[in-house]
Amino acid sequence: MDGTGPAASAGTLADAWNAAADEIVSAGRRMDGRGWVPATAGNISVRLADGRIAITRSGTHKGLMGPEAVMQVEPDGRATVPGERPSAETLLHCQLYARDPAIGAVVHGHSVAATVLSMQDPAPALEFSGYELLKAFQGLATIVEPHLEECRLGYLIRGHGVYVWGPDMFTALARLEGLEFLLACRLEERKLPR
Amino acid sequence: MDGTGPAASAGTLADAWNAAADEIVSAGRRMDGRGWVPATAGNISVRLADGRIAITRSGTHKGLMGPEAVMQVEPDGRATVPGERPSAETLLHCQLYARDPAIGAVVHGHSVAATVLSMQDPAPALEFSGYELLKAFQGLATIVEPHLEECRLGYLIRGHGVYVWGPDMFTALARLEGLEFLLACRLEERKLPR
Amino acid sequence: MDGTGPAASAGTLADAWNAAADEIVSAGRRMDGRGWVPATAGNISVRLADGRIAITRSGTHKGLMGPEAVMQVEPDGRATVPGERPSAETLLHCQLYARDPAIGAVVHGHSVAATVLSMQDPAPALEFSGYELLKAFQGLATIVEPHLEECRLGYLIRGHGVYVWGPDMFTALARLEGLEFLLACRLEERKLPR
Amino acid sequence: MDGTGPAASAGTLADAWNAAADEIVSAGRRMDGRGWVPATAGNISVRLADGRIAITRSGTHKGLMGPEAVMQVEPDGRATVPGERPSAETLLHCQLYARDPAIGAVVHGHSVAATVLSMQDPAPALEFSGYELLKAFQGLATIVEPHLEECRLGYLIRGHGVYVWGPDMFTALARLEGLEFLLACRLEERKLPR
Repeated sequence: MDGTGPAASAGTLADAWNAAADEIVSAGRRMDGRGWVPATAGNISVRLADGRIAITRSGTHKGLMGPEAVMQVEPDGRATVPGERPSAETLLHCQLYARDPAIGAVVHGHSVAATVLSMQDPAPALEFSGYELLKAFQGLATIVEPHLEECRLGYLIRGHGVYVWGPDMFTALARLEGLEFLLACRLEERKLPR
Repeated sequence: MDGTGPAASAGTLADAWNAAADEIVSAGRRMDGRGWVPATAGNISVRLADGRIAITRSGTHKGLMGPEAVMQVEPDGRATVPGERPSAETLLHCQLYARDPAIGAVVHGHSVAATVLSMQDPAPALEFSGYELLKAFQGLATIVEPHLEECRLGYLIRGHGVYVWGPDMFTALARLEGLEFLLACRLEERKLPR
Repeated sequence: MDGTGPAASAGTLADAWNAAADEIVSAGRRMDGRGWVPATAGNISVRLADGRIAITRSGTHKGLMGPEAVMQVEPDGRATVPGERPSAETLLHCQLYARDPAIGAVVHGHSVAATVLSMQDPAPALEFSGYELLKAFQGLATIVEPHLEECRLGYLIRGHGVYVWGPDMFTALARLEGLEFLLACRLEERKLPR
Repeated sequence: MDGTGPAASAGTLADAWNAAADEIVSAGRRMDGRGWVPATAGNISVRLADGRIAITRSGTHKGLMGPEAVMQVEPDGRATVPGERPSAETLLHCQLYARDPAIGAVVHGHSVAATVLSMQDPAPALEFSGYELLKAFQGLATIVEPHLEECRLGYLIRGHGVYVWGPDMFTALARLEGLEFLLACRLEERKLPR
């Protein structure tokens, strides 16, 4: 995340790219270990110091890919290298980065809990309260919110999975884990006889 | 997957065999990590360039085996090496390869979700719609279909598990993960009170 | 498993011991990976060529132990080395080895499914039929049977977990995986509304 | 855990610190493997020979951290190194160490089962009986008890997860696994139709 000054050398830029790609690869393996990126689902991105975005290519398996599965796009979502084709979800990542300059990383995954709850629930939002895990979201009581304009830390698309972001990949992944934990709790609660 | 031309050397053929066996061993470990090949269940195959098939032997544990657990059969299912005995399911793999020359790999596993849903469900097919994961199946709305003639990407045998295929092992495994994800979602949905 | 003849050297005996201890350690790690040996639960044994038994010590964690956690007992369950204290379950293993000379390995684990089903179910046995996984049990339709005299491959003690055996550790573990798969299926089936 | 005598050298103290930090890091990875420390949840501590406490810092991920994520506090919970800030839960650990000089390690995690059961259950305590796993708790029939004064091995805070302790980390982790196993069983039992 350094190399922003005018004296940044080509080596530094390459290092920053490699670091971003490594973060994305590690995040994919972690998400795969939890079963959140089945098949070629999910996508993961990091904002680079120059405002461009490192993001997973379309059609890759996020748990099995290497750094070659990461491509670079401009802030508007076009591929930096002519001829490369970004995934359709790339624009959702770009929209988030454009909305908030504090966002440094975005992760999108599909869990069974998120999918089942979003397909079942007629309500526009899932509410959580009283869970200590909410600390991970810093006081936000309603964390799963399909209306992007009211949403600060993540959202869930019906039948599609969750998008979560943060200033860096560590925070984005921690929020994803916190959110998926709450969704797993909610799914279990739904199964209990009342 | 190269070495198809007349100049292919013995070394190339051995390399192709080793690559196929490695793909099968890796696939078995991955399926085992998800719990889809309990005991000695499951079988995994790859079509070689000459039309023969590399397939797991009977009685092996798909998560613990090495490449010696992979044997070669002719397109009609007989062992290439006289005296070796293929598993009973080998003919199901051969049937799929014979039906469609575009199939390069077939995977068969047993998951709890597939077993429970296929044992419970009186209907001849499970239908899925509205799930983004269906993208992994390229628009096929009904993916689990016990009537082979109507089925393009996979099928499920009552009490037995799923068969999924693709042009290569990566695609076959990705489709298996997508299908198992949908089956896991369906099983969770069934448990929710209505 | 060799070294049974009169010419067996001390080196061979030590090798056989090390092989048995390694099999037990590997089995424990595998069972731990599935969550079947929580805390210090479970025990694992192998019959040696001379009829003595290598078995896990009391109080060890089966997923974290090394070969030093394996001790030797006589066929009647007394420690071969004076002063060592076998676990209480050692006699259950010895009873099985005494009943059938073909038994070479015994594994005992605690799964959530086995515990919940055995605590809930008023019936003396769980019956399974129609599951392809039963192949792993070679045609035995009723595999979970608390009456030892009628039981050929494994039994389940109420609130306690399962004991499974076989001619060797590979077979015992494969049967354990098959049985736990069926128990997991049964537990899921019980949760579905009728 | 040695180095308590007056002849203990600086080297021995550093070794004891490193050993404590390694135990904490290993415990965190194990808990993460089971999904019990999502996001930055959980905390883990070991009492040092001089009465000070090695404990995880605030905001770290317990499954991804290294030994640098472990800090030292005085028995009253203040940081040994001026300027370092302990987590809010540090005082809960100190309270336990102060109550019982036999406690050597404390682990706190959040599981789905603990969270769901503690949020749902109107009763002040969960009771368990008839489970062989209770052996891990040495005869204690009621192990999950929100009233600390009556509790000898662990407690559960509504919506918050469990605290478990023992004379050493091995015992504390084994008790945690035993307790989580029982909670997992209870959650499954609740889902079965009556």
